[in-house]
Amino acid sequence: MSSFPPSQTGSSSPASPSLTGSCVIAQSGGPTAVVNASALGAIEASLAAPCVTRTLGAAHGIEGVLNGKLFDMGCEDRRELSLLRCTPAAALGSCRYKMSDPEEDAADYLRLLGVFRRYDVRYFFYIGGNDSMDTCRKISGFLADAGYACRVVGIPKTIDNDLCGTDHCPGFGSAARFIATACMELDRDVRVYEKGRVTIVEIMGRHAGWLAGASALAAHAGGGPDLVYLPEVPFSMERFLADVAAVYRRRGSCMAAVSEGVRDADGRFVSESPEGGRDVFGHAQLGGLAALLAEAVRRKTGFKVRGVELSLLQRCAAHAASGTDIGEAWDAGSFAVAQALAGASGKMVSFERGGTHGEYACRLTLVPLEAAANREKLVPRGWINAAGNNVERAFVDYALPLIQGDVRPPMENGLPRFARLRLLPAEPRG
Amino acid sequence: MSSFPPSQTGSSSPASPSLTGSCVIAQSGGPTAVVNASALGAIEASLAAPCVTRTLGAAHGIEGVLNGKLFDMGCEDRRELSLLRCTPAAALGSCRYKMSDPEEDAADYLRLLGVFRRYDVRYFFYIGGNDSMDTCRKISGFLADAGYACRVVGIPKTIDNDLCGTDHCPGFGSAARFIATACMELDRDVRVYEKGRVTIVEIMGRHAGWLAGASALAAHAGGGPDLVYLPEVPFSMERFLADVAAVYRRRGSCMAAVSEGVRDADGRFVSESPEGGRDVFGHAQLGGLAALLAEAVRRKTGFKVRGVELSLLQRCAAHAASGTDIGEAWDAGSFAVAQALAGASGKMVSFERGGTHGEYACRLTLVPLEAAANREKLVPRGWINAAGNNVERAFVDYALPLIQGDVRPPMENGLPRFARLRLLPAEPRG
Repeated sequence: MSSFPPSQTGSSSPASPSLTGSCVIAQSGGPTAVVNASALGAIEASLAAPCVTRTLGAAHGIEGVLNGKLFDMGCEDRRELSLLRCTPAAALGSCRYKMSDPEEDAADYLRLLGVFRRYDVRYFFYIGGNDSMDTCRKISGFLADAGYACRVVGIPKTIDNDLCGTDHCPGFGSAARFIATACMELDRDVRVYEKGRVTIVEIMGRHAGWLAGASALAAHAGGGPDLVYLPEVPFSMERFLADVAAVYRRRGSCMAAVSEGVRDADGRFVSESPEGGRDVFGHAQLGGLAALLAEAVRRKTGFKVRGVELSLLQRCAAHAASGTDIGEAWDAGSFAVAQALAGASGKMVSFERGGTHGEYACRLTLVPLEAAANREKLVPRGWINAAGNNVERAFVDYALPLIQGDVRPPMENGLPRFARLRLLPAEPRG
Repeated sequence: MSSFPPSQTGSSSPASPSLTGSCVIAQSGGPTAVVNASALGAIEASLAAPCVTRTLGAAHGIEGVLNGKLFDMGCEDRRELSLLRCTPAAALGSCRYKMSDPEEDAADYLRLLGVFRRYDVRYFFYIGGNDSMDTCRKISGFLADAGYACRVVGIPKTIDNDLCGTDHCPGFGSAARFIATACMELDRDVRVYEKGRVTIVEIMGRHAGWLAGASALAAHAGGGPDLVYLPEVPFSMERFLADVAAVYRRRGSCMAAVSEGVRDADGRFVSESPEGGRDVFGHAQLGGLAALLAEAVRRKTGFKVRGVELSLLQRCAAHAASGTDIGEAWDAGSFAVAQALAGASGKMVSFERGGTHGEYACRLTLVPLEAAANREKLVPRGWINAAGNNVERAFVDYALPLIQGDVRPPMENGLPRFARLRLLPAEPRG
């Protein structure tokens, strides 16, 4: 698998004089197995840049920026820092804070401007999903209107892979690899008994079925779910029960992978979480679907059935991460800094798939933040079969290159050795 | 980590003339990441033994023996067979069939004797837990009474590690390694937000807390559960809620690992599964404890809380298996055959921990089947802290050597390549 070096695409933004000042790197939204690799790429590029006076990490994303809780990343031990490449979650801390529109309420933006002035921040890099890209867009616009020179670049991150403006998103490949691996193992496990059973595997993905579709990579590799349900196709309980019964009659067992985000014909989620609540962005908190569907199958068919939630490991299983994903995540962070130094702002790093003769290759480029903000990229209907109970070969061809490469954390005493950062508070200038 | 070669301990059973005839290898009970490694050890040793005329695999454990559904393992491609070392679940198929006492009902035993005669079976190896060792004991006794010369040896297997008569059990090390790794990753994932939360991780283990205790290896390695609850100590909901609240006040977040088998002061399981039912051995089917405890914490404290079930991956995550466990599992299968050829019968393979200066080493030996049958080995009370909400250093010292060694399946296209056996039916002689 080859990949275009970022340097080749530096031309994608006009070269203009570098600003001298400090840089802030922040992480936002749900953690992933590789969001720290992106942070590391940005931190290492920033520490190496002569015009960057200080490389700061924001505690808990934009919240740390607003509260002036910033870490001096230059104080970290470089070897410890390098362990971020294989350390899951978000080493700087994350948040789900939603900033208002500056027109409605500029308070947050004025606080941010004050902090940026005190710390002489001239570069801001936000690693996150479409909500974070919207935050970037608003901050970038406000700072420009305020006449404060600061370059703002978004670095894409989400296991959901639902970001527009990019071929795929760092975090997805590792989650997809874990899901496919787990489904291959579950396929062996749940079919050991003579008397078959039904297994329902619940997979993350609020609105897009990229992660649920990744379970089909297991079947492609020789053993995985017989059925796969994505949120892109309205979910019918009747059809689901009929599908399961049909497979069970044919195989003597059935494994179905279902996205937590499946909705009925009226657009209602088949499952709402026990907590019921919604997050600050108004997204329903989901969960418990596997148990709900297992109960439905049990009542309808009397088959022995089990629900399995892959749960949080889908986003944090660094021990099963994709080497391609880790590498691309680091590249995205490093590329963002290089582009900002060259003058880019108001942009998001994007992956453009190239390659010839079906060989995978990817080029980094920049797209306007607007391309990603507040929108969700769904799995094309044509990549889902007509019956809406599995994915087509086109999906496999898209996802397979993204799960390649075995890169695991250094081990210590049989367990992964994750980064232990000092995270020392940075004082404002003067 | 050194280990005594099995050959050194061949003397542990009296040498007597080898019987000439075929050998049957069967797998029973819940699958594990390494039960196929034990089967491989037995199959390879048996195929190499001149006096073994045919190496047969039983379809679905004792059920395949009773129904004469036997596979000719000599027909398998050797390279494909060797992939069993890293293939999870039970390649021959498993069962939970319980044989009656021969005194009460000899029908099964007479059927088995008939099959053994037709296939000229002179060696029987059963890979399983304490129920299977009891089955071995009954079969061994019946065949002796019937005057049919056949050597019966049990090969220990269970992730629960609750088998008596052995220091530990193949399957436990790999499950413990996955649990500890997953808990380290979850620890990073659930503490990323400024506003802390409570995470409850449900871990397998019906009566013994070996697996729940393994989660403490994560904390020992720098990040894991703050609280660990084992079935060996009566579970008090009041104390649990107080423990969680105390940790949350101190840390701003809390992670608790709880065994699915925790019971109240009256010995009632805190959780019974949605299915309610009991398996054929009368064991309650458990599950859903994490959700139950999460709801209790939510109601009592109002904290943001999430329940996580590690579920079936605990027993089938071959991608995270322990190299020590895989090696010992293979050794156990190979040793069983060597000992049976030398005359041993009515015995179970056992691991005897040796080693000096705290260095880990293990010796294989044989114990009477009675030592393991129908009994459960619990975690010593002294290895659990006085408060009953975590394990002591002695537990860590016991478990840590068992999770060492990184051996993973060969990869193909970014995913594990598991064994694909032909499993050709074997015809009876003449």
